[in-house]
Amino acid sequence: MSETTTFTGEPFDRGSFESLLKRRLFFTEAFEIYRTSGNLHGDSRGLFDYGPPGSALQNNIVDAWRRHFVLEEDMLEVDCTILTPEEVFKTSGHVDKFEDWMCKDSKTGDFLRADHLIENVLEARLKGDKAARGVTNNAEEEDAKVDAKKQKTKVKDIKAVRLSDGEVQEYEEILAKIDNYDGAELGELVERLEIRNPDGDNKVLPPTPFNLMFKTTLGPNSASPGYLRPETAQGQFLNFKKLLEYNQNAMPFASASVGKSFRNEISPRSGLLRVREFLMAEIEHFVDPEGGKKHHGFNEIKDLRLNFLDRDTQLSGKTSVQNISIEEAVRKKLVDNETLGYFLGRIYLFLLRIGVDNSKLRFRQHMANEMAHYAADCWDAELLTSYGWIECVGCADRSAYDLTVHSKKTGEPLIVREPRPEPLRIEEWQIDINKAKFGPTFRKDAKAVESALLALGQAEREELLTVLQQNSHITIDVPGVPDGKVDVSRELVKFEKRTVLQNVREYTPNVIEPSFGIGRIFYSLLEHVYWHRPGDVARGVLSLPLLVAPSKVLIVPLSSLPAFVPIIRKISQNLRRLGISCRVDDSGASIGKRYARNDELGIPLGITIDFDTVKDDSITLRERDSTKQVRASIDEIIASIKSLVDNAETWDDVFERLPEFISQGGEDE
Amino acid sequence: MSETTTFTGEPFDRGSFESLLKRRLFFTEAFEIYRTSGNLHGDSRGLFDYGPPGSALQNNIVDAWRRHFVLEEDMLEVDCTILTPEEVFKTSGHVDKFEDWMCKDSKTGDFLRADHLIENVLEARLKGDKAARGVTNNAEEEDAKVDAKKQKTKVKDIKAVRLSDGEVQEYEEILAKIDNYDGAELGELVERLEIRNPDGDNKVLPPTPFNLMFKTTLGPNSASPGYLRPETAQGQFLNFKKLLEYNQNAMPFASASVGKSFRNEISPRSGLLRVREFLMAEIEHFVDPEGGKKHHGFNEIKDLRLNFLDRDTQLSGKTSVQNISIEEAVRKKLVDNETLGYFLGRIYLFLLRIGVDNSKLRFRQHMANEMAHYAADCWDAELLTSYGWIECVGCADRSAYDLTVHSKKTGEPLIVREPRPEPLRIEEWQIDINKAKFGPTFRKDAKAVESALLALGQAEREELLTVLQQNSHITIDVPGVPDGKVDVSRELVKFEKRTVLQNVREYTPNVIEPSFGIGRIFYSLLEHVYWHRPGDVARGVLSLPLLVAPSKVLIVPLSSLPAFVPIIRKISQNLRRLGISCRVDDSGASIGKRYARNDELGIPLGITIDFDTVKDDSITLRERDSTKQVRASIDEIIASIKSLVDNAETWDDVFERLPEFISQGGEDE
Repeated sequence: MSETTTFTGEPFDRGSFESLLKRRLFFTEAFEIYRTSGNLHGDSRGLFDYGPPGSALQNNIVDAWRRHFVLEEDMLEVDCTILTPEEVFKTSGHVDKFEDWMCKDSKTGDFLRADHLIENVLEARLKGDKAARGVTNNAEEEDAKVDAKKQKTKVKDIKAVRLSDGEVQEYEEILAKIDNYDGAELGELVERLEIRNPDGDNKVLPPTPFNLMFKTTLGPNSASPGYLRPETAQGQFLNFKKLLEYNQNAMPFASASVGKSFRNEISPRSGLLRVREFLMAEIEHFVDPEGGKKHHGFNEIKDLRLNFLDRDTQLSGKTSVQNISIEEAVRKKLVDNETLGYFLGRIYLFLLRIGVDNSKLRFRQHMANEMAHYAADCWDAELLTSYGWIECVGCADRSAYDLTVHSKKTGEPLIVREPRPEPLRIEEWQIDINKAKFGPTFRKDAKAVESALLALGQAEREELLTVLQQNSHITIDVPGVPDGKVDVSRELVKFEKRTVLQNVREYTPNVIEPSFGIGRIFYSLLEHVYWHRPGDVARGVLSLPLLVAPSKVLIVPLSSLPAFVPIIRKISQNLRRLGISCRVDDSGASIGKRYARNDELGIPLGITIDFDTVKDDSITLRERDSTKQVRASIDEIIASIKSLVDNAETWDDVFERLPEFISQGGEDE
Repeated sequence: MSETTTFTGEPFDRGSFESLLKRRLFFTEAFEIYRTSGNLHGDSRGLFDYGPPGSALQNNIVDAWRRHFVLEEDMLEVDCTILTPEEVFKTSGHVDKFEDWMCKDSKTGDFLRADHLIENVLEARLKGDKAARGVTNNAEEEDAKVDAKKQKTKVKDIKAVRLSDGEVQEYEEILAKIDNYDGAELGELVERLEIRNPDGDNKVLPPTPFNLMFKTTLGPNSASPGYLRPETAQGQFLNFKKLLEYNQNAMPFASASVGKSFRNEISPRSGLLRVREFLMAEIEHFVDPEGGKKHHGFNEIKDLRLNFLDRDTQLSGKTSVQNISIEEAVRKKLVDNETLGYFLGRIYLFLLRIGVDNSKLRFRQHMANEMAHYAADCWDAELLTSYGWIECVGCADRSAYDLTVHSKKTGEPLIVREPRPEPLRIEEWQIDINKAKFGPTFRKDAKAVESALLALGQAEREELLTVLQQNSHITIDVPGVPDGKVDVSRELVKFEKRTVLQNVREYTPNVIEPSFGIGRIFYSLLEHVYWHRPGDVARGVLSLPLLVAPSKVLIVPLSSLPAFVPIIRKISQNLRRLGISCRVDDSGASIGKRYARNDELGIPLGITIDFDTVKDDSITLRERDSTKQVRASIDEIIASIKSLVDNAETWDDVFERLPEFISQGGEDE
């Protein structure tokens, strides 16, 4: 476990944190009653259910995302299907390339993700070496601290064994670039370093690829394989032509989508961080590849200073960041272009807006082998958690990869056509067809043959001209005719180079793709906002901002007095009418206990109804983080809440404006 | 096709309607570029993508649903996984019973849904009979009108063949209860009535069941089958115990969930109405089965008058509705209980709120065989469309079915424990164990044997006592010991009947489940709000209410004058700051064309910026349905829009308050 601290500077205690999330039902393992009763026989790990506060927090993060990106930037949101026929993912490359490498335990038959296995074993060896050298007294203790980020198999025993200095250096270098190995390299490492399954110490078989997509069958006929999408992107690409039309052919533009995606992880671990089903929010920004990929909003974000961890630094085995402005990063070509830089800035602003701790945020560039098969460049927004640095947002330049492959497969031009300000003069090989003889020669195939000829590229035309100068005919491929080939004799066609004016420019847009893993953001954010009251580890608080808090206001009546009932109803109805979610806690627990519950749910504001309320219509308003309270009339308090929710006032403003209320018994009464 | 009319009373023209939805990208067939290019070889029908206005409308319907149900009624929203291991659906009955019957074409191998096939063939025969009797002159014309609700195979040729009167009567009776047959009965009908595939006239094989769940494999090991959920309900049931605790053990309460579900339809047809992947919003309301299932909110909805179509009316072959109050329906036992009645009322209010036409809404009770395997009673909210009456919301009483089966399978008590106001005196068989001898006899198994004894029910205890009176020992099942059985001799146990006081009442709650098919509501709503300007079929309008309209305001600058740019930005920023979505249409099209586009997108309000705006800061506001306009300052117009969106004013109020603006050229300028 990485040793992280809460923002109050105390050590982060994952045990208390997880116990809070469980107690308050933020999320839970799915099918838990089946699991604990021994009724699940297969591998159903990596699946989680969100309880009421978790579901509300997730919805609020998604809403904030929609406002920040879709609404503010006028993106075209779409909702495409999860189920996708095989043909689409064959073209996109996912059927062939979307895989991890796994090693099978030679005896138990268990599958282990190869890179995680190697990482795990080498880290254990390095720890054993430290123990043998006396650097660490207690190898077991070291083991407990193992950075669990990569969902490793558990290391049962650290053996105190000395390594040579050469071995230590080699292992450390391998670990620094573990994400950068392909299957053959992983196999070589397993063999040479004698990697075994730490769980049982059995030999493992050489790594084999495992496709991460879930497969199923569409319809009653088994001849229709389909997959659950591993990303929302492909649906957006397939609709590119329609979206461009919908956008009245204006470029650049972005589509966006929020929805579930699925990856059949070999060995899901670490709670919400490596799961098989997850909510994604993805943007596909389509941009002209020429002209340096400028962005009209660049000025608004260029001065933001981000923590950048580039590719070269990582390849040299280091993890030090540069804190520089986006403008400087783009100028230095650290970040390739303005559009990529713009989105890094917008991602940064979004994460801070929902409550992420800036000191636990960095932008890390992918190394070459680590990138997805379609990416030209990629930066991850990573959040520091007790599991280490976690990739929460990817921002990839997918270049023209996807539109090009789908266009090629379907014959549908996924391109932009723009009038040129000045017509372009180009020389090109043109084909003249002798219409008078062409029809009678080919009869019903004439049209297909003509289309096939006109579809020939410039290089092919030049080549065929050479053939025609030596032979009496050329042979060309014509789909749909017998044999698929046709001979065209010399008197039917003429190839000639001519100068033509092009008034229209055609290009395939490049795609910049900011892709958000909502579950990972959700979990990391909760770690960032978690702390406890001074001196009391048991009194945890989640300092979620009003914007995303599961509920905005807790209403606490001091007793179950019947006179309170209409007051509670009035307050909650008024709040709901303003679109402000609230919760009533009329349990018999003490005020202090109820506020503590409230703190654990991350509800920022609390209203107390007491005996004076019945007399003078006054209520108190408590702020979660400071536990300070003010007192005023119901209407005044509700107006203040509205103004806090709308971000028109801060709590300090309200606290200054309204009289402070000091409760007699304090919080713990 | 049913002949429906628009709310202006003109015939509904599905052709123009669908062309509008396609043109404005409300939704589109998924993977269309693969389909049209002949690149899809399998059966990938029944999958649709939502474009920008469709996605926004869908999001707004879901938001309205959350506000209407989750927020207003304080429901516990959860988000559970789609992927579910087989064991869960075995218990719930879906692996065995969630199926449709299909017939295979004996020659082509095509699969046809059995009930739809029979319905289709019998309707064709009845039409042929009418044609032969001369009732209809043109059989083809009749065919075109076939009610396509049930996604039937297409009837290619209607043959004018006379039927006997007995046959006509029998066919009509079969059609009236076609949803009520099981597999064997469908098979008998196929055989006896010589049903063939109308497409090719081949014989069909006897019906076989087809499970409608999509199957996949979890993890790399093939021994872990899983399914995509066909409903969101099971995740809610599995979390019942935690939700009850979260609710501080207070009953009744409801959980709710919005998410994708999947059903592998044999033959998906009719656009969005029978699809394989769909968005659902489901509520599971947990209620005490005793005390008549009262609901505290019943008074608020009891006077609403709904159109009820009950089971008996349908079984008698009729479809006439009774328009009576919910109170009367519950009193008459037409609707079983208050809670069911309450939700029918809330469903009704929700549907009207989002813009459903009340004259095209009815509540239909399920017939016995038509109900899902878990349901005790079920009412559907059906919306009338050009495809006939479409089930859009189901409201089922699932009784204690699901909680009981999961509890039995897992041993987890999914029950409510409530203190009794008065302790209950009951007589029961108790077991006394001779501890002194028990331990030495069974040693390490002693605890397991004791648990097995104490787990015996009252009837079993009584039975075993009889055995023990005749034999020296009893034999009981003990899981976990060798052979799974243990002999317990007479001196170790004593059975005795005693009077005990029960202070706690335990019960398994019943579940009332309102379940919303968002895609079907989406489509039916669009049919309900579609009409066209008088005398101009080409000028379609979607009169979506402000609450759900994809965008609230269209901003139309009269020209591309640079002076307009800051004004456009100011207006759109101000609107967005108020959370009001807007769209700018600065295309070169005429104002009339742009308003027409706007009408087709269902955007309720339009702002025009003209040359006077630059001088005096005034803009016009146009209301979509009336096309009336008012003119005032930017601030005044924005304040009016806010007040319309907040439902604080109607358009009539605004129109009365602000000066009317009459454009010189009219709408078509």
